[in-house]
Amino acid sequence: MSAAVSQTAVSSTERVQAAGLRARTASKRLALLSRAEKDTVLVALADALRAAVHRIVNANAEDIERGRIGGMTESLQDRLRLTPERVASIAQALQDVASLPDPIGEVVRGSTLANGLQIKQIRVPMGVVGMVYEARPNVTVDAAGLGLKSGNAMILRGGSAAASSNAVIVEVLRVALEAHGLPADSVQLLDGGHEDVDALITARGLVDLVIPRGGAALIQRVVLGATVPVIETGIGNVHVYIDSAADPETARAITFNAKTHRPSVCNAAETLLVHRDIAATFLPDALKQLADAGVKLYLDDDSRAIAGDVPNEPVTDELFGTEFHGLEMSVGVVDSLEAAIDHIDRFGTQHTEVIVTENRAASREFVARVDAAVVMVNASSRFTDGGEFGFGAEIGISTQKLHARGPMALPELTSTKWVVEGDGQIRV
Amino acid sequence: MSAAVSQTAVSSTERVQAAGLRARTASKRLALLSRAEKDTVLVALADALRAAVHRIVNANAEDIERGRIGGMTESLQDRLRLTPERVASIAQALQDVASLPDPIGEVVRGSTLANGLQIKQIRVPMGVVGMVYEARPNVTVDAAGLGLKSGNAMILRGGSAAASSNAVIVEVLRVALEAHGLPADSVQLLDGGHEDVDALITARGLVDLVIPRGGAALIQRVVLGATVPVIETGIGNVHVYIDSAADPETARAITFNAKTHRPSVCNAAETLLVHRDIAATFLPDALKQLADAGVKLYLDDDSRAIAGDVPNEPVTDELFGTEFHGLEMSVGVVDSLEAAIDHIDRFGTQHTEVIVTENRAASREFVARVDAAVVMVNASSRFTDGGEFGFGAEIGISTQKLHARGPMALPELTSTKWVVEGDGQIRV
Repeated sequence: MSAAVSQTAVSSTERVQAAGLRARTASKRLALLSRAEKDTVLVALADALRAAVHRIVNANAEDIERGRIGGMTESLQDRLRLTPERVASIAQALQDVASLPDPIGEVVRGSTLANGLQIKQIRVPMGVVGMVYEARPNVTVDAAGLGLKSGNAMILRGGSAAASSNAVIVEVLRVALEAHGLPADSVQLLDGGHEDVDALITARGLVDLVIPRGGAALIQRVVLGATVPVIETGIGNVHVYIDSAADPETARAITFNAKTHRPSVCNAAETLLVHRDIAATFLPDALKQLADAGVKLYLDDDSRAIAGDVPNEPVTDELFGTEFHGLEMSVGVVDSLEAAIDHIDRFGTQHTEVIVTENRAASREFVARVDAAVVMVNASSRFTDGGEFGFGAEIGISTQKLHARGPMALPELTSTKWVVEGDGQIRV
Repeated sequence: MSAAVSQTAVSSTERVQAAGLRARTASKRLALLSRAEKDTVLVALADALRAAVHRIVNANAEDIERGRIGGMTESLQDRLRLTPERVASIAQALQDVASLPDPIGEVVRGSTLANGLQIKQIRVPMGVVGMVYEARPNVTVDAAGLGLKSGNAMILRGGSAAASSNAVIVEVLRVALEAHGLPADSVQLLDGGHEDVDALITARGLVDLVIPRGGAALIQRVVLGATVPVIETGIGNVHVYIDSAADPETARAITFNAKTHRPSVCNAAETLLVHRDIAATFLPDALKQLADAGVKLYLDDDSRAIAGDVPNEPVTDELFGTEFHGLEMSVGVVDSLEAAIDHIDRFGTQHTEVIVTENRAASREFVARVDAAVVMVNASSRFTDGGEFGFGAEIGISTQKLHARGPMALPELTSTKWVVEGDGQIRV
């Protein structure tokens, strides 16, 4: 059994369509599994990964070595690296998924109609879910686990940087699935080039949903090229707005945490907006703390005037529109809450937006008028996360409005079906 | 004020993008309206339509005359025709929407996290919703009413057959909106050609959702060409499966109702599948009743052998795959429930599928294994309808799995937003 959809002489489209058909067949089995059956297999998959730790770490070393030769930065190498401890933690994540409630079969709504028909809307699997992602191989395992728990067959297309790690991981999972009586094709890995991605996102009738997870270029490619339904994820140009009625110490702590706690991820803050009335009180200390932590600051004229001697460069509209993924931050002074909302409306990506204020009217207006997946009052943007929200897992953070918005976990990987039960009702 | 986005020398793309920008601006107002404000305006819109009944009927007469000259069938002319009574009923539909609960602001989920953060997921409008549809002008009013109630700005692109009716209706609505202090651009009508549709479905960042409603060609065009999110609607190759344990009289009544009650619509049945063990008991009378009602029958060899002398033609795979929209029906005998499910899996469009049976195990298996928006036991497929389900209105029937599946009404026109409230929480 090959761990991946093997490359042959046939075209990418034919290979991917064949993979889609096998996934479709597997999905019919998965849709009918009980929670107990799924949880047993999830635990077995975790065991299989633990048992294969050396093979996985060795394959990962090949990826790292290839990356090193190719000039990959140390920090990217570190993101990619799998140690025995990290493999153990990835395996544990599968067991955590086993402990989550089964979304399938949940009754979402229901009623008995006047004519006696009993209608209920229940959660069912999507069917076949494609996932196109970059870098970290733990996403491979998370996607397989969440897919199995939600009754979906997964077609995964990981980044080339993690190709060896992903190939071994998926092979281990497939062998373990089959050993427990489930179709190996519940999880498939595409190992072709970009043409595999193009074939996957246009496989209408075979693929029910594609989730891209990665940088802006990857997401654009998928969204613009897809003819199957897509959920966009993860572009986060996050703003922290410090209202005139903010508590300065709370504002400083939230700003620092949102920017520096983990600057590479999508829920990190990129822009700090400060109300003019609190700028002189708040900004000098806040900017100094950021600069001391190595944050490169881009300031507008008003903030520079009160920034003291912190190193800075002038901000531009382009910088205001940039997700830095690192220790950089744009800073602007605004005249009003209204101006802050307008700025967010213009430059934001509808991911997470934060207001810091002790004023009730200001927080209510910000929450009502800012259009984003997550709007926060007096909390760090870093809390936009499936784990933090108590979902137990996360397959990505949706920044679109259709189907799912914000952190996505098991319910977001489901569709619904109406079941109507009668005793011979006809329409008159 | 023009009732429609006027045709000028500028390109279709520029005109539609300008319409999108105006809709975006209007949507920000609509998102903040209270239920009372929206309901007041909905009643006023209904009054305005009633007051304009003669203008609307006259404009409609132009459409009918153009259709007649162009060779439109009598039945299509009848679908298109607006009488004073039909205008009154369209106006009443707006008042019915006013009486429905407001979906906006509904708290879908929520909890208080261990760290004290209070999170809640609330319904918010989509923003700007495009709708591309054919024929009946009542859809124009329904879309405007459901859009307003759900806080969305609507960009409508009706069929050319109803161009005059739609233009007057939208102008009446826009004047009434403005008279009540709401932006006229809450409802816009595109009156350009197919290039307007292409511009609408690729207006990323301006249009949050497009719903196509019409024939298969229209839906294909939108789904394949769109780069904005789409909800597919309405293709219904509906099957009625008569199980061996069916009550023959119930089976006959449901089959007849599903096929003949309103054969032109998507929830009408197209294929009758009959278990071999009940075929001789059930089929002769059922087929005779269908034939007597004018249904053209396409029979497989097994059903023809027991059909008696009802007129029929041989069924083909192509006919099994056809949504007739009229008094035609394919009929097949199957050896088992399994075979019926396989047939539905192969030819169905995941709209509505019906089993008639008194056997509990058979109904449970059918419900579990048939993948469709609506699965019915002992009831006519004609009940797949927002009104019948108690939604009070319907904007279409989704046959896709993402976001909405089955009849769509107000909640399906919304997205959600997470609101997170804290008192200074940061991630550690």
